[in-house]
Amino acid sequence: MRAAHWNGQRLHLDEHYPTPQSDEQTALIRVRLAGICSTDLQIFQGYMGFQGIPGHEFVGVVEEGPGGLTGQRVVAEINFACGQCHLCRQGLGRHCPTRQVMGILQADGTFAEYVAVPIANLHPVPDHVSDEAAVFTEPLAAAFEILEQVHLQPTDQVVVLGDGKLGLLCAQVLHLTGAKVCLVGRHAHKLEVARALGMHTATLSDAPLSQADVVVEATGSTTGLQLAMETVRPRGTLVLKSTVATDHNLSLAPLVIHEITVVGSRCGRFPPALHALAHERLSVQPLITEVYRLRDASDAVAHATRRGALKILLRP
Amino acid sequence: MRAAHWNGQRLHLDEHYPTPQSDEQTALIRVRLAGICSTDLQIFQGYMGFQGIPGHEFVGVVEEGPGGLTGQRVVAEINFACGQCHLCRQGLGRHCPTRQVMGILQADGTFAEYVAVPIANLHPVPDHVSDEAAVFTEPLAAAFEILEQVHLQPTDQVVVLGDGKLGLLCAQVLHLTGAKVCLVGRHAHKLEVARALGMHTATLSDAPLSQADVVVEATGSTTGLQLAMETVRPRGTLVLKSTVATDHNLSLAPLVIHEITVVGSRCGRFPPALHALAHERLSVQPLITEVYRLRDASDAVAHATRRGALKILLRP
Repeated sequence: MRAAHWNGQRLHLDEHYPTPQSDEQTALIRVRLAGICSTDLQIFQGYMGFQGIPGHEFVGVVEEGPGGLTGQRVVAEINFACGQCHLCRQGLGRHCPTRQVMGILQADGTFAEYVAVPIANLHPVPDHVSDEAAVFTEPLAAAFEILEQVHLQPTDQVVVLGDGKLGLLCAQVLHLTGAKVCLVGRHAHKLEVARALGMHTATLSDAPLSQADVVVEATGSTTGLQLAMETVRPRGTLVLKSTVATDHNLSLAPLVIHEITVVGSRCGRFPPALHALAHERLSVQPLITEVYRLRDASDAVAHATRRGALKILLRP
Repeated sequence: MRAAHWNGQRLHLDEHYPTPQSDEQTALIRVRLAGICSTDLQIFQGYMGFQGIPGHEFVGVVEEGPGGLTGQRVVAEINFACGQCHLCRQGLGRHCPTRQVMGILQADGTFAEYVAVPIANLHPVPDHVSDEAAVFTEPLAAAFEILEQVHLQPTDQVVVLGDGKLGLLCAQVLHLTGAKVCLVGRHAHKLEVARALGMHTATLSDAPLSQADVVVEATGSTTGLQLAMETVRPRGTLVLKSTVATDHNLSLAPLVIHEITVVGSRCGRFPPALHALAHERLSVQPLITEVYRLRDASDAVAHATRRGALKILLRP
């Protein structure tokens, strides 16, 4: 099959990469659309030391698989868990210590014509949800994860720091609760997208200090945490969504002095995201910047790193 | 009056420091016993830029004050709040943005014969609680603060990192809940104190990795956070009790990847601490290393910084 392969140095198109196999536990899925995530861009900076086919956001159709799955349009949770350990038994397969993670850790991903996924990870996509919407299920689930971890009050003043893809999804999800949400960023175009979606926005210099009940750090930058600590009120909650590969260098004393709660937040369950997409509770299409062919994956990645880009998609 | 004064450079004994005044809102208290806290040692390293009389742990007797307080033995909460702002109105005077903090921020403290304290901050000490126990009320309240912030489960596996004064108090308080508590440290003598109080103990090299449901970081060192991140399980809770004056330099990506919740924790309310002391639910006397006279405050501080020292007290 055709696949974009990352060898630790560069991404190159392989026209004859071995097509993965289905088995009793695993479906072979033909990728219809894949998304480029900031985590992928981190991987190209060395994050996780990954080598193989990157990509973990996708929608596809089951080509081969057990139990009448063939032909079904699906999305898939990205953590391939053992299902046996104490964390898996608590429903925390996303934290299984021996898990593989599609396109991130010891498992090939979705920048390819086909991908193999454990059937336990598959979710059917409702017919009326387009491919262009369904491809956002994974990052949207990561945004909904915040609501599984933090009990937002309808009276809460929420600030989302970062006007990138994840920030725009988090702001929309938190907005669903009735809380007052303000997206803070530095890209006029992206803030315009947010306003068109009904969000309040502010620039960094206008962000109110020490007032927000909940701050979501989604800047993808090491400086975001410092700003987040300055934005959240005493006894407030700071949600960390950015995985930053480099070290932080800052004083964490304000966390203690102001008794801030910091909640690390990563992947989420898919059902809330699919439900929101199926009922059009939010809008992901304005986040699509461009769709590339898989054969132009390198150009697509270059575009994704450019200032101003939002979601770049790959079509095999 | 006699007082130990910190001028930003050195601690010196002033035999003629002006005695503070009582008024309608403020009691004048004769200090019977004061404790030296790690925060005081941080102040002597430049923390908070404080100058004046340090000290915030004490027990004393009201010498002058409104409303029949005279003669009462008291302890006092250390944050002098405005009582008017939105945080004070929510019962969060400990976070009042214009607060003074006794011996730490814009208010003289307890390394003196007398200290002036707002009457709103006073708590009477039950007769049968000794001065040597009552002087621990403030740090013990800081340990109880953890239970106000984190809902400990009786099935939780708890690790307290740091066998210093605060670690020993935190471990005892968390032990009250029925959770399984292990104190981890590197001082044989201090771990022995912990075992004599009924705690489980471990050395750093024996501490189990990625297993604890709740980890309390009370090492007072910048390296403690890294160790705490390695000790807590995925989706676990990490309580930060140490205020470290210097910067941290580490990757916080594990907080996101393992979805750790970090809870900054500082001062607590006094009633739970006084209740525990009054009912002898825990034991603070084994933590006393030595009692010095106020005139020997510099020697006392030097002793407090020495390896192996636990609580050093000052008697005016």
